[in-house]
Amino acid sequence: MNLVLLLPEDLISSDRARLTGRRLQHVREVHRAGVGDDLTVGLLGGKMGRGRVLRLDDEALELALVLDQEPPPKLPLTLVIALTRPKVLNRVVAAASSLGAARIVLLNAWKVEKAYWSSPKLKEANLREHLILGLEQAKDTVLPELRLARFFRPFVEDELPSLLRGGTGLVAHPGTGGAAPKVLVAPFTLAIGPEGGWIEAEVQSLLKAGLQPLDLGPRILRVETALAALVGRLF
Amino acid sequence: MNLVLLLPEDLISSDRARLTGRRLQHVREVHRAGVGDDLTVGLLGGKMGRGRVLRLDDEALELALVLDQEPPPKLPLTLVIALTRPKVLNRVVAAASSLGAARIVLLNAWKVEKAYWSSPKLKEANLREHLILGLEQAKDTVLPELRLARFFRPFVEDELPSLLRGGTGLVAHPGTGGAAPKVLVAPFTLAIGPEGGWIEAEVQSLLKAGLQPLDLGPRILRVETALAALVGRLF
Repeated sequence: MNLVLLLPEDLISSDRARLTGRRLQHVREVHRAGVGDDLTVGLLGGKMGRGRVLRLDDEALELALVLDQEPPPKLPLTLVIALTRPKVLNRVVAAASSLGAARIVLLNAWKVEKAYWSSPKLKEANLREHLILGLEQAKDTVLPELRLARFFRPFVEDELPSLLRGGTGLVAHPGTGGAAPKVLVAPFTLAIGPEGGWIEAEVQSLLKAGLQPLDLGPRILRVETALAALVGRLF
Repeated sequence: MNLVLLLPEDLISSDRARLTGRRLQHVREVHRAGVGDDLTVGLLGGKMGRGRVLRLDDEALELALVLDQEPPPKLPLTLVIALTRPKVLNRVVAAASSLGAARIVLLNAWKVEKAYWSSPKLKEANLREHLILGLEQAKDTVLPELRLARFFRPFVEDELPSLLRGGTGLVAHPGTGGAAPKVLVAPFTLAIGPEGGWIEAEVQSLLKAGLQPLDLGPRILRVETALAALVGRLF
């Protein structure tokens, strides 16, 4: 937690916050802060700054706030990620959030097991928690937009073309031989397939929607590794 | 497991292998292969190719091998990573291996807790297992060199300069304002600090050894996210 993210309900006045639970525990045990110390803080959806510790005990952390900095700009990036195994979903969501993507779409694909869509990990509260963990990691305050696209075809045919909005769309797909386009125009859309890859018909649909194939080379990377590598390449 | 990695002791003749344990279970339960199916296989340190399933039951997987492809080339890259918390070490090691780094150095730093060096995760067998998981993920057969540098100063002062060998060395450090150098000459050395960052004296030592500062921007990324983003940017 490189930034303590404050929720509106944490504020007890315009420049005071009181925290309990996970964040209280983290500040005590990991930051090992004491009264008088300054912490990096930010208000969800708002400004960042510092919070001076006024009280820190078993019950609560109280902070005097000076919020005078803008959060870092979001990347003009939509990540379209085939829904991952529940076991890795939290990590992927937090990584995408920490990288600064403006929008994340979790998409169905042929090789996404149906059962994944029933996972409790997909509940809004869980997804939001891991988006927030990504913001706390990266020192950001602005949640990315997160959408679940349970059906491949209507999303790709009806919505994806307008998301591209004259920018650059890429679909990671091994063996296509596609190099990153020389001219990269924002906004960016990156589509990353499931563990078994996109099937050919899906690749064709994505290309028809306006994405360009991108071959990352012979190595097959985990989703969270691939998306960080792609973001590192583009930005 | 995108490639079934065979160890020398798995070979029962020059073109036959018999597997048990984790890999047998994975091929049965995840690949759901049957007799007659072809699997992508590779021999540790050697060639890759395919293995046709001759037998697959509770006891063993037997494969007829055709090993006729070279593994992908390693990246000319040394990753110098401040030793992470044990909890994330396995993941970082596997990610570094999957990305294709030729050499990984786990280095001490001021903000690395001493106890991390006593973790059972640092045992050779555990590190090797996670390097192998990275190879199986990425379809590679060649283990990177992995070194533990328990002492910062002798490594950085005496060994790091010769590792650089006329190539490009970068140290990721927020707030330096350093952009990636325009001219990138291989081999590459990337140094990634601990969760709390390098202390200033460490940055100075790394710069003196020949590394250049690289500012990745305002976002603080987890080690495995940062290293994938850096590799994506450089290669």
